[in-house]
Amino acid sequence: MLFFTQCFGAVLDLIHLRFQHYKAKRVFSAAGQLVCVVNPTHSLKYAPTRCAAAQASTEQSILPPCHHHEAVHDPQLVPCTCPLFSCPWEGHLEVVVSHLRQTHRINILQGAEIVFLATDMHLPAPTDWIIMHSCLGHQFLLVLRKQEKYEGHPQFFATMMLIGTPTQANNFTYRLELNRNQRRLKWEATPRSVLECVDSVISDGDCLVLNTSLAQLFSDNGSLAIGIAITTSKVHSPEAEM
Amino acid sequence: MLFFTQCFGAVLDLIHLRFQHYKAKRVFSAAGQLVCVVNPTHSLKYAPTRCAAAQASTEQSILPPCHHHEAVHDPQLVPCTCPLFSCPWEGHLEVVVSHLRQTHRINILQGAEIVFLATDMHLPAPTDWIIMHSCLGHQFLLVLRKQEKYEGHPQFFATMMLIGTPTQANNFTYRLELNRNQRRLKWEATPRSVLECVDSVISDGDCLVLNTSLAQLFSDNGSLAIGIAITTSKVHSPEAEM
Repeated sequence: MLFFTQCFGAVLDLIHLRFQHYKAKRVFSAAGQLVCVVNPTHSLKYAPTRCAAAQASTEQSILPPCHHHEAVHDPQLVPCTCPLFSCPWEGHLEVVVSHLRQTHRINILQGAEIVFLATDMHLPAPTDWIIMHSCLGHQFLLVLRKQEKYEGHPQFFATMMLIGTPTQANNFTYRLELNRNQRRLKWEATPRSVLECVDSVISDGDCLVLNTSLAQLFSDNGSLAIGIAITTSKVHSPEAEM
Repeated sequence: MLFFTQCFGAVLDLIHLRFQHYKAKRVFSAAGQLVCVVNPTHSLKYAPTRCAAAQASTEQSILPPCHHHEAVHDPQLVPCTCPLFSCPWEGHLEVVVSHLRQTHRINILQGAEIVFLATDMHLPAPTDWIIMHSCLGHQFLLVLRKQEKYEGHPQFFATMMLIGTPTQANNFTYRLELNRNQRRLKWEATPRSVLECVDSVISDGDCLVLNTSLAQLFSDNGSLAIGIAITTSKVHSPEAEM
């Protein structure tokens, strides 16, 4: 009996995922882009000071216990870049991707242009939606975060980070695009390196920022579709801008 | 002696304006766009309920005393659309532009693509930067407002309104673009009609919204340059989006 109940649950989940994927495809099919449904990662144990210097952590969370270090003693070693969870892991840049996939179960997508479909936007802050994006010979980490910078007023912050060095990151430009209800919002910037802290990027506000009302305008039935494109960047000059 | 002091003051003002215009031209000269320096309009007498039904007002401000009406009895009559000041004037749509120019001294610029250079972004909220834009046979009102939706956290809101009916407004798309420091932010939407209230557009957050930190990233020495373009809109369909 338990077996049949589990089977029925699994079938319902599949139908729900299929429906969300279909919805996204309906919107983005014209562009022939790959659509990835991203479910939220919600943690009640949000540690705003985890970007401070390395310190022992006893916090437990849903995923394996984690801890962030900013002071990496071996410059070749990278602390775990998974946001929201403090993770004690550190390793070489080359193995960050496999750590994120295996330990944190973060999906990886291929392609220059993809659509990130974040579900359940109504969930309370703090909540993260995370995915990896493989493109132009590199891997990028996209983080969408719902956070209350001002108490009682959650906002959405979206940024892209290169799983590589800051010098490598300077060679790229990423674009995040929202498009719905005859409104379009585009953010273009140079990705940060995962050696920098995603928390500081968000607290500096140097990313795509959405108020709840704007996020609702761009959402469809509780899901927010973000078009992502990565290109190699050209040399910027003030005269060439705008 | 007083005459010479006034002359000296006027010359200093001219040099300051010329310098700001030169700065903007340096940034945008490549595009050959018209740059307009827009000084702020600061009012301490901010009336958040001025969009309510018509009522007698005794408020005084720097500009001639004004009052807003939402309930216009003659559908051909339009209340004064100048934000921040409540203005008792109402008149036909055809004379709104001359009222805004003459009574509120709002400049009007010609051209499909212009650059709006808002100065003194550091001024405390509430502050407005307003300009009229003549293009494609119509006049548009651009409003940039600094306002504290959350106490102690001012934000910038930018929107464009057609000096025309909502039906006419649906025929256009406006684009606001910020571009500096290898970052680019674009907002595209259908303009609202001045028959709707600019306050409600801003309180709904259905416009370009900038946190102070992002506004600083896009500012140059306290001035924010916004590229403006207006086009006739195409028919949108969900499949054609993104």
